[in-house]
Amino acid sequence: MRGEFALIDELLKPLARGFPGALGLTDDAALVDVPEGQSLVIAKDALVAGVHFFADDPADAVAQKLLRVNLSDLAAMGAAPLAYLTVIAKPRGQEDAWLEGFVRGLARDQERFGLWLIGGDIVSTPGPLVLSCTILGLVERNRALRRSGARIGDLIWVSGTLGDAALGLRVIKGLAATEDEAFYLVERYRRPEPRLALGQRLLGLARAAIDVSDGLLADLGHILEESKVGGRLEAELLPISTVAHGLPGWQEAALGGGDDYELVFTAAEEATASIEALGSELGLRLTTIGRIVAGGGLEVVDAAGAPLVVEGHGWRHF
Amino acid sequence: MRGEFALIDELLKPLARGFPGALGLTDDAALVDVPEGQSLVIAKDALVAGVHFFADDPADAVAQKLLRVNLSDLAAMGAAPLAYLTVIAKPRGQEDAWLEGFVRGLARDQERFGLWLIGGDIVSTPGPLVLSCTILGLVERNRALRRSGARIGDLIWVSGTLGDAALGLRVIKGLAATEDEAFYLVERYRRPEPRLALGQRLLGLARAAIDVSDGLLADLGHILEESKVGGRLEAELLPISTVAHGLPGWQEAALGGGDDYELVFTAAEEATASIEALGSELGLRLTTIGRIVAGGGLEVVDAAGAPLVVEGHGWRHF
Repeated sequence: MRGEFALIDELLKPLARGFPGALGLTDDAALVDVPEGQSLVIAKDALVAGVHFFADDPADAVAQKLLRVNLSDLAAMGAAPLAYLTVIAKPRGQEDAWLEGFVRGLARDQERFGLWLIGGDIVSTPGPLVLSCTILGLVERNRALRRSGARIGDLIWVSGTLGDAALGLRVIKGLAATEDEAFYLVERYRRPEPRLALGQRLLGLARAAIDVSDGLLADLGHILEESKVGGRLEAELLPISTVAHGLPGWQEAALGGGDDYELVFTAAEEATASIEALGSELGLRLTTIGRIVAGGGLEVVDAAGAPLVVEGHGWRHF
Repeated sequence: MRGEFALIDELLKPLARGFPGALGLTDDAALVDVPEGQSLVIAKDALVAGVHFFADDPADAVAQKLLRVNLSDLAAMGAAPLAYLTVIAKPRGQEDAWLEGFVRGLARDQERFGLWLIGGDIVSTPGPLVLSCTILGLVERNRALRRSGARIGDLIWVSGTLGDAALGLRVIKGLAATEDEAFYLVERYRRPEPRLALGQRLLGLARAAIDVSDGLLADLGHILEESKVGGRLEAELLPISTVAHGLPGWQEAALGGGDDYELVFTAAEEATASIEALGSELGLRLTTIGRIVAGGGLEVVDAAGAPLVVEGHGWRHF
């Protein structure tokens, strides 16, 4: 096994080429210039083996999840990716091959999403692998999408489909599914698609946004809380993939399951045509699932407007 | 014990007051505006319990070390502190009291060094505590101190005294010392002093700089390598505290011991009077310890110029 300096030299430094301010990862810190009129957007997240991913998940998929979870935070603010830093706390005795796979995953997603590694470290730990990522993006000053902008009367929208990732996690844990279904759902869990183009195009169209990491109810709840408004969701409008629809527990997965990394956003009714056109242009399903209302809290109703009881994040009629 | 959301609400959110772009830690990311003509300086480091600090170290001291190690990276670039993000991977079952002490340490150093928490997360881990910090600073564009700027003929300088922290670590591990000596050395190890004012004032005076984290020989070695020059150190010029001087192994500690977080820098001979005046003004010992020479590598010599053999990072005559 190579030492930590050799690992940094051979594996991490190539990821920094292309970003001059990374200084080739040879200095104490990196330098980032922010163009006039823009703000830097910065978020930091961590993944722990055995908690946020399985120790035997493919290393490249773990790298991609780490980056994409963070890219999704940029998407939710309407920011464009710029660069990232990472700390890898590596269990003693872990094979270099794992880190090589991890770096391949980073390299692939760097190219795909247009960002570079500009700093970070490899340290050793007697415990499980801990990965941390700090992501940097850019957004026009004073235009970032916030959780706090929702207003009464806004429509509530969501991108893509809900519940797939939670079902993918259940498939990994043993839920029966066909090979095709399993592949689709597990990929949705392992390699979520950060909705970067959508987020950036929603600047000026959406009033509030968040990404679905903890589950629709929880994350929409953050928008309601920060915006000091209430919400009314129509359960039957939730976008469910055909794969998910056939499986037990899809309702719970759609309402309460995390890890989809779709964007939930609110927008004035007048923006509807523009948002629909945007969805067509991006080839991305965008669905209205409810409305922002006065008061607080979140109500889930059926198509006739009758309230549903949400239990364990599934639902039934009274 | 409180859940992670409650810990963030009660402990971390108060640390974000005072930095509007932190958005109260309620959004997906933080927003940072960089004044025109300045660059953002960004570094990321991690500490693992049992590897980089002792699991029974005082929690506030661990917080201060985490921040100061990162602040020292800013100091080495000549940057002023702005903000930081932190991820705390917390062992299951760890008492809230530990985290409360940790946050007290962060709060104290935030105030002292003038920066705010703008993001981060608390996650749980089955392994030891892992702490990661991303630090942000500002420096005038194109003026940051680099490792690569040393030129032949430059004097090599160091701030403060060398070897104290390494001896402090040995005291924690059982090296005999008086109570006063132990207190001084252990504090130097646990709460290093990032040389922020010095770093900022060296812009335009110094040509290359780095902080002593891995040890003088290793860190000066990075300057030599990045600058493609050689170095010649006079062993007898190394600044040693009176406490360290009395203890066994002080030579090894001064040359090879890490964790002092003093600045090593090079400057043209003409800058000597200005640097001496700066040292007086800051009340900080600044010592010339050698010179940059042609070729590569680092030679350690005695007062008469005779080469010393450096073995295990101590020294002796041939």
